[in-house]
Amino acid sequence: MGQIINTSIITIGDELLIGQVIDTNSAWIAQQLNAVGMHVSHRIAVGDVWDDIWEALDIESKRSQIILITGGLGPTADDITKPLLCKYFGGKMVMDGPTLEHVTYLFEKVFNRPMPLLERNRKQAEVPDVATILKNERGTAPGMLFEKDGKVFISMPGVPHEMKGIMTDHVIPLLLQRFDPGDIEHRTLMTFGIGESFLAERIKDWEEALPAHVKLAYLPNNSMLRLRLTGRGPDAVILKKEVDDLFASLQALIPDVMIANEDITLVELVGKLLKERKQMVATAESCTGGYVAHLLTTMPGSSAFYTGSVVSYTNGVKHDVLHVAEETLKTVGAVSEATVIQMAENARKLMKTDYAVSISGIMGPDGGTPDKPVGTVWIAVAGEKRTETKQFQFRYDRRRNIEMTAINALNLLRLFILQAD
Amino acid sequence: MGQIINTSIITIGDELLIGQVIDTNSAWIAQQLNAVGMHVSHRIAVGDVWDDIWEALDIESKRSQIILITGGLGPTADDITKPLLCKYFGGKMVMDGPTLEHVTYLFEKVFNRPMPLLERNRKQAEVPDVATILKNERGTAPGMLFEKDGKVFISMPGVPHEMKGIMTDHVIPLLLQRFDPGDIEHRTLMTFGIGESFLAERIKDWEEALPAHVKLAYLPNNSMLRLRLTGRGPDAVILKKEVDDLFASLQALIPDVMIANEDITLVELVGKLLKERKQMVATAESCTGGYVAHLLTTMPGSSAFYTGSVVSYTNGVKHDVLHVAEETLKTVGAVSEATVIQMAENARKLMKTDYAVSISGIMGPDGGTPDKPVGTVWIAVAGEKRTETKQFQFRYDRRRNIEMTAINALNLLRLFILQAD
Repeated sequence: MGQIINTSIITIGDELLIGQVIDTNSAWIAQQLNAVGMHVSHRIAVGDVWDDIWEALDIESKRSQIILITGGLGPTADDITKPLLCKYFGGKMVMDGPTLEHVTYLFEKVFNRPMPLLERNRKQAEVPDVATILKNERGTAPGMLFEKDGKVFISMPGVPHEMKGIMTDHVIPLLLQRFDPGDIEHRTLMTFGIGESFLAERIKDWEEALPAHVKLAYLPNNSMLRLRLTGRGPDAVILKKEVDDLFASLQALIPDVMIANEDITLVELVGKLLKERKQMVATAESCTGGYVAHLLTTMPGSSAFYTGSVVSYTNGVKHDVLHVAEETLKTVGAVSEATVIQMAENARKLMKTDYAVSISGIMGPDGGTPDKPVGTVWIAVAGEKRTETKQFQFRYDRRRNIEMTAINALNLLRLFILQAD
Repeated sequence: MGQIINTSIITIGDELLIGQVIDTNSAWIAQQLNAVGMHVSHRIAVGDVWDDIWEALDIESKRSQIILITGGLGPTADDITKPLLCKYFGGKMVMDGPTLEHVTYLFEKVFNRPMPLLERNRKQAEVPDVATILKNERGTAPGMLFEKDGKVFISMPGVPHEMKGIMTDHVIPLLLQRFDPGDIEHRTLMTFGIGESFLAERIKDWEEALPAHVKLAYLPNNSMLRLRLTGRGPDAVILKKEVDDLFASLQALIPDVMIANEDITLVELVGKLLKERKQMVATAESCTGGYVAHLLTTMPGSSAFYTGSVVSYTNGVKHDVLHVAEETLKTVGAVSEATVIQMAENARKLMKTDYAVSISGIMGPDGGTPDKPVGTVWIAVAGEKRTETKQFQFRYDRRRNIEMTAINALNLLRLFILQAD
């Protein structure tokens, strides 16, 4: 079995501390490290404050073998990270030829802006002479690797797509050369519609019987709860069989709530079912306002199974484009079973698909009535032979109601496709 | 002038360290504190590990007067935060009557599940006797306030909407009772289409001349860069005038890139312009797949200015629903000026609006050609009297191309509305 590799992530920037930027970098970095068997033990965010950054380096290098640092490398005045790192590791600043060439290339060929006007951008190519430079293909601030007392420190820019490029191109391969995290096996399954505590109760005995080198993680995401089993062991073959057996016994405990025995999103799962059947789906959305369409089309290649949507946010569009009867809208209203049936059946004909999903509801904060309070939602799925409907009552805020409605619509579509087989 | 109030945020949970959950709580908390003049100096994330949590409490209480702790209070086995806090503050666990009543009420009346089946949920009402209980209206785990050596520690559940409720209902009012952050004035403006380094270069002299008690923050978000000026001072009247004057002089430097002199999103700005003019807009989206519709409808009250969208992801839907000529799709293709003109003009007629915005492009990773590489986008805005088009060439990944396309479409709409006046 390999070593336990502890990593600390230090994110630098006042913008993180005033809360104007959500730190998505740390989660992404942790996922990448985790996938290769390394462990993030601490994450810390500090402002552009010399003493705070210095102290964070001191503290984290006592805790971890690897210290990853993001942010603080921009061209504006408040970024002090690079001179600090230079001093911390006892180097002096030098101009790095290849980086200057790259920065100049970016300005002249990619940004189409004259480099000389922005002298401060030349500074992006100044680096501590004690750093190993990790090329940033996507931006001007290079990654930098330092070593001290057997610990590895890597500084990267905070711009997410630049950081991701440097991690993938350089950092992960370099870390795997230097550290041996040993063998690791992950197995993930997806559930739908069961809360963490209810699921934990059902698999309690199984979970308590897990050997010490196999861990179970609950990864909630709205109505979808992922379970991930992670095993480590000295023998890859034995470990694989052991984790496979445990994963099979877990699946057998919860067949009713498991929707996939792999790490897959609900959108990917629906897309996969449709592609396997060479079928197409369309949507007709009112209250979700195009969010289901957005979820489906964020997936690359979705045009293989998705034709499009009519986002009918007003009754006018429901009538004019989706041909929902005026009578229906007048009598039972837009948030009704009759309306979603017509929306789904007509959208299916209009966009010539195998299935159509329609949604109408009240997401809040306004628009509720005693009869139809905020959170009331009707969803329909229409196929060639039949149409199914379901009513929901959510009780969250607007954004979360939209999210919950969308994933429940996708889940109803999933069930409808499976039943149609 | 009030005190400088330093706050540390400690987030607890293995799920943060394995990167499966993005920490949005810290940013939200920081925003709330910042708005009332308090300062987050450190944010740290640790796993469900006894020693790590204990050490984080020790370290952060040396740094800050206020220590906010989120997460680690769930009903599953790996949550050790509550017993740890009990021991750290020298208390013993007791059953809290009002909390037990609230937990029972939630299970019986809201979740519609029998409480006795889930004995572990009773544990949510067990609290250290040294804690002041902060009621969690939205969930089972209460907030807890502790005091030690003049420092305030507040523990909250990690579920975002529960944490937000406790912060708003209890934490902010309590902190303002105990601490006096003094007067604070914020002014924010929005720019569009200018990078941080270019903007910094333009306002360099102005920024360098700022007095020490007024700070400028650059808050980038895709093509939109917010500038926020924050002043602190002993006299509220003088401070307000001073910050107003500085803000006016900043605005005068960048009239060409400033799109609003308030803290407002592009969607809110477009909505405001339309509502002021009592006008409506519709969209016709291909490659953005409903994302523009989603952005517009995430805003409460958007039905006052938005009718809906035809998400025409296939040529079939472009022709059948939006009546784009087959000839056009065959000769110049879906990603062309001629197509977006027809999409916008026909969507405007179909949905009977003052304006319509249409988008067609190639978001990647596949689908590019030498003529039309990934990132090629055409956008049109149609009004009663004229239609404008613009071509873009983005070079990011799929998700970012969708985001950049959407905000550029909204900005073109904004300009079109202003020009129509």
